Amino acid sequence: MAVKVLLDPSFRLTETIFAEDDLQRIHAVADVVWGRDEPIDEDQLAAVAPELDIIVTGAWRHGHPSRFPRLRAILEVGGHLPPQEDLDYDYCSSHGIRVLGCAPAFGPAVAELGLGLALASARQIGWTDRAFRTGEPNWSHTSFATEIGDTFTLYGKQVGLIGFGGLAQSLRPLLAPFGCRIGVYDPWITDTFLRRQGVEPLDLDTLLATSRVIFVLATPSSSNRALITAEKLDLIGSDAVLVLLSRAHVIDFDALTDRLLAGRFRAAIDVYPEEPIGQDHPIRRAEHAVLSSHRAGANTEALRSVGRLVADDLEALCTGRVPRMMQVAQPEFVRLRG
Amino acid sequence: MAVKVLLDPSFRLTETIFAEDDLQRIHAVADVVWGRDEPIDEDQLAAVAPELDIIVTGAWRHGHPSRFPRLRAILEVGGHLPPQEDLDYDYCSSHGIRVLGCAPAFGPAVAELGLGLALASARQIGWTDRAFRTGEPNWSHTSFATEIGDTFTLYGKQVGLIGFGGLAQSLRPLLAPFGCRIGVYDPWITDTFLRRQGVEPLDLDTLLATSRVIFVLATPSSSNRALITAEKLDLIGSDAVLVLLSRAHVIDFDALTDRLLAGRFRAAIDVYPEEPIGQDHPIRRAEHAVLSSHRAGANTEALRSVGRLVADDLEALCTGRVPRMMQVAQPEFVRLRG
Amino acid sequence: MAVKVLLDPSFRLTETIFAEDDLQRIHAVADVVWGRDEPIDEDQLAAVAPELDIIVTGAWRHGHPSRFPRLRAILEVGGHLPPQEDLDYDYCSSHGIRVLGCAPAFGPAVAELGLGLALASARQIGWTDRAFRTGEPNWSHTSFATEIGDTFTLYGKQVGLIGFGGLAQSLRPLLAPFGCRIGVYDPWITDTFLRRQGVEPLDLDTLLATSRVIFVLATPSSSNRALITAEKLDLIGSDAVLVLLSRAHVIDFDALTDRLLAGRFRAAIDVYPEEPIGQDHPIRRAEHAVLSSHRAGANTEALRSVGRLVADDLEALCTGRVPRMMQVAQPEFVRLRG
Amino acid sequence: MAVKVLLDPSFRLTETIFAEDDLQRIHAVADVVWGRDEPIDEDQLAAVAPELDIIVTGAWRHGHPSRFPRLRAILEVGGHLPPQEDLDYDYCSSHGIRVLGCAPAFGPAVAELGLGLALASARQIGWTDRAFRTGEPNWSHTSFATEIGDTFTLYGKQVGLIGFGGLAQSLRPLLAPFGCRIGVYDPWITDTFLRRQGVEPLDLDTLLATSRVIFVLATPSSSNRALITAEKLDLIGSDAVLVLLSRAHVIDFDALTDRLLAGRFRAAIDVYPEEPIGQDHPIRRAEHAVLSSHRAGANTEALRSVGRLVADDLEALCTGRVPRMMQVAQPEFVRLRG
Repeated sequence: MAVKVLLDPSFRLTETIFAEDDLQRIHAVADVVWGRDEPIDEDQLAAVAPELDIIVTGAWRHGHPSRFPRLRAILEVGGHLPPQEDLDYDYCSSHGIRVLGCAPAFGPAVAELGLGLALASARQIGWTDRAFRTGEPNWSHTSFATEIGDTFTLYGKQVGLIGFGGLAQSLRPLLAPFGCRIGVYDPWITDTFLRRQGVEPLDLDTLLATSRVIFVLATPSSSNRALITAEKLDLIGSDAVLVLLSRAHVIDFDALTDRLLAGRFRAAIDVYPEEPIGQDHPIRRAEHAVLSSHRAGANTEALRSVGRLVADDLEALCTGRVPRMMQVAQPEFVRLRG
Repeated sequence: MAVKVLLDPSFRLTETIFAEDDLQRIHAVADVVWGRDEPIDEDQLAAVAPELDIIVTGAWRHGHPSRFPRLRAILEVGGHLPPQEDLDYDYCSSHGIRVLGCAPAFGPAVAELGLGLALASARQIGWTDRAFRTGEPNWSHTSFATEIGDTFTLYGKQVGLIGFGGLAQSLRPLLAPFGCRIGVYDPWITDTFLRRQGVEPLDLDTLLATSRVIFVLATPSSSNRALITAEKLDLIGSDAVLVLLSRAHVIDFDALTDRLLAGRFRAAIDVYPEEPIGQDHPIRRAEHAVLSSHRAGANTEALRSVGRLVADDLEALCTGRVPRMMQVAQPEFVRLRG
Repeated sequence: MAVKVLLDPSFRLTETIFAEDDLQRIHAVADVVWGRDEPIDEDQLAAVAPELDIIVTGAWRHGHPSRFPRLRAILEVGGHLPPQEDLDYDYCSSHGIRVLGCAPAFGPAVAELGLGLALASARQIGWTDRAFRTGEPNWSHTSFATEIGDTFTLYGKQVGLIGFGGLAQSLRPLLAPFGCRIGVYDPWITDTFLRRQGVEPLDLDTLLATSRVIFVLATPSSSNRALITAEKLDLIGSDAVLVLLSRAHVIDFDALTDRLLAGRFRAAIDVYPEEPIGQDHPIRRAEHAVLSSHRAGANTEALRSVGRLVADDLEALCTGRVPRMMQVAQPEFVRLRG
Repeated sequence: MAVKVLLDPSFRLTETIFAEDDLQRIHAVADVVWGRDEPIDEDQLAAVAPELDIIVTGAWRHGHPSRFPRLRAILEVGGHLPPQEDLDYDYCSSHGIRVLGCAPAFGPAVAELGLGLALASARQIGWTDRAFRTGEPNWSHTSFATEIGDTFTLYGKQVGLIGFGGLAQSLRPLLAPFGCRIGVYDPWITDTFLRRQGVEPLDLDTLLATSRVIFVLATPSSSNRALITAEKLDLIGSDAVLVLLSRAHVIDFDALTDRLLAGRFRAAIDVYPEEPIGQDHPIRRAEHAVLSSHRAGANTEALRSVGRLVADDLEALCTGRVPRMMQVAQPEFVRLRG
């Protein structure tokens, strides 16, 4: 008997996340229900609920999992595991329902932009390019470089990662050829495990004070809101670069803006407290920052790899194998995230 | 008897290229002559000529090597081997005088900027940053991206390298984690050798027509002036990125400028036919380009690694070992370069 | 309140698996119960059952998990997950009890012996060494080599892996520098996943017929007993090497013995249908085999890494983090293994 | 005008070193003279001498290079650069005649056997296999292991390399996945260079006393005969493994034999003071040794890669490119080797 899969990706669009052949792979192993871009309506959902084995969805809006007696997996395609208030994880775990997240699909693209932003800051690519347009003297044999601090390479530098989840795992191979020493602050992971991975566990203050490049990669949680306060920002060295990649949630953005306008250190920013950030927000005038408009994961390739991972894991689930591509919702993680 | 080394780095400054400990290492193995920032004058040079074993210099301005009967090595610190009209390579090679170039010192820094420029173009970092300043709508869910072509990642893309010398060797490890397929055009290297290195030899037209990212890395020579003509530029795909890193010499820069202003493809440019490029040069208005002011190798770290390589090879030469860090002037190379 | 951990490693000995500092790490995070080399007796177990949070044991002999109301993890140190007839996995999964296996501790040591055996066979190290002892002419310029087929290197060869679990994951980095093409037969894993890992999924017959070196790495299960039959063995090329590493269970050992005595191909064997294998078993006379006495994982270092993994994951579990070192019992795996 | 190449490979046989397509590649770029397995006779050599551009030969027996006015390269296919008494290197270097050696062809195969021998010793593969044949109890749970010291893995061990030439360069990638710390003794290379390569320069005594696995890789020279004396051998730890790979020349072989018979440490030996070693030489009884009959480089694949390298570099030389595959005879090296 075919495995019955509800394909209800909204707010994602089918075409955005699925290449044609990934969609075909899904249809080859599963009996697909719905499969349209708008959310399934409640009546239709109720009608198929007793038969559903797997639900693929952009956000959990399907009620309590107990209404799906055959359910054994939920695959989310939005980018974040459903919050605890929306989904009863305890019920899922006590009924053998796997909850799988698509965050790994975004890792490579986000990590690549992270490296690109770090290089654009350290090597002053953004500033130099702007100077070409405004006619400022910006040639290398002039005093240009010193106004914004010297350009530097990543080779052999101390790099600090705030957060050591999937983004960090995707970033590490990109940094590997530069031979950086890597320090990590991540309270959700034991120091022992970090050392086994070849990185040095650091407390947050030490990381901020000693890293030449700091990547903010932490998943937002109830416990890390504005983790990087004004005082913490003041620990950052004047020749350092801060790359804000995961979420503005974890930083005091006003304090960051002040420091960048004052030229305290350099930064590259992809996320903001509100998006789009206001036209008159002072961060737009920060000469010492490279500004990016939440483009780390928002691109065709990353979105299509969501669909590829979903198709891969559906292939596994529908044929009795262990799904290995998406991220398993771990109870500790769900708990901490709040 | 101590080895006598003329240290005459001009146009480089001693402090620019030598860290304190590298200078100390040289003094520990050699009897250093001169060692000042201005060029040695002819009288003093004539006086020490009979005793010199090794000459370290920013450019060859010391006459015919036959005036140095004990000479066995010339180490240049300018960045390019002396041209044939300045130095008699045949005499050097028939008298066991090694000619060593410091170009490898710049490889890592140049390759890093090359990667940074490629990412800034492919991921539209430069354009997005500029849009923040001018107040253009540039958020990812708008139509912004499509105006300049879609953003793309380097993962798995076809990359073309024009030139497979030291810069390519430094660039390859940085590209490795992206899993790119690499094609190479380099008429100075056999196809067999390229295949042994795991890259695919391509003719220039095929490389230009099929690569998503094209790195121009060729050393300028008499035979490759304006190698990349207007017609060649027209082969480049509309979704491709051209990174001009080694020399403007190899490209028809006016034709490139026209195509960038017309939005034919994207580019990142670090070198120009004249530097600084004129304030009114149209390239400064090219939206589809990331512009950099010959900053690939011109930075403190790269310059200091010139001195480190020189110190390393002087250590070897003064103690009877093979110098292994600098680039050996090969007769075929000298000949081809003209 | 401290986490209560039953440390009941029998049949393993505490000293065998725990380095002093690993034991200290456990005591630092947990309230350890028992901790002796003999199995805990039933009375004492009954007394502490209500309070146990975690059980570390060499084999599951502790009854139904429902007797431990607080239990949330079982860590086995024997090397294999408990069979379904001993442990109620359904109960565990529906009550949030993680079952973790220590098999990953053995991966590196087993993979290393696998590589060593492959080299000893392909390069005829075993045979040559024996010939030195018996006084046979064995010098390389004699006809010696041809009698047992030519010696060959691993570089660039086609390698077949039967089973792509933890052992394969440990073996792959050791093979990487040899540039082998790797084919895999593993019915528990989707072809898609194998291709994502950069290996080629093959059916068993094709793998046997086309590989120059074949590694048998499959975990024994009810479905793969004598998987490699006499007919399958006849597919193996005469210049190939078979490395039997995981279990004799998966192969028709008598058929293998016959073929080795007949010189059909070469082999290296670490596991036998009965161990120790009988003194008069004909396999002991197989000239074309390298024989090893189940020594792949049975060594001090591998056993101590069992304890290190246990300590690592206890550190995580006792401090609210996700355990990341041991192997999670997946429902599909438990089911298939029978 | 075609490049004229004397192909006079004796003592090598054409078929031994050249695959058909490598031979074809040579004929495609060069006008080949001779090309037979016996050495060219003097009359014929004299007749073609004035026209020869390149000589490929198994040993230099062609007189003074001055008799070949057009000569610009000598490619040796024997495995060792001609000794100074046979070839006038000064003349070659002052007349632009490159002398190229084929030693790099053997690097990978020799390194692989080195790793195989190290594993066979550390993991006791040789001894265990022998015990199977003699019916000795050799099962892992018996006391067997302790009689010859414990088995150990290479992971994370201190490894010492005596000699850091081509063999070491081929061995390093094979060791890389084991995460060994690598110390090197090589008086021909500066400490600085060794550190740049990521290895630690050590004096010979420290290397012997602290390494768990010692690889003897040094090229024999006048200055390193019996470098490893009886006293030096006494520095080796009782739990260490010595792998003698390059030449017996560098070791006091009698002292080594004594120590192995006494069970002082373990060893693997591929080279001997006389080959074949006598039937009654006591080393044949050394239980603690793995014995190999100079088989590191003597195999079909390594010999064929001699031909491949020669064809590659002839392609380069005949088309005006720099030869990059064979080893350039460096003056310091020629001098030191004597």
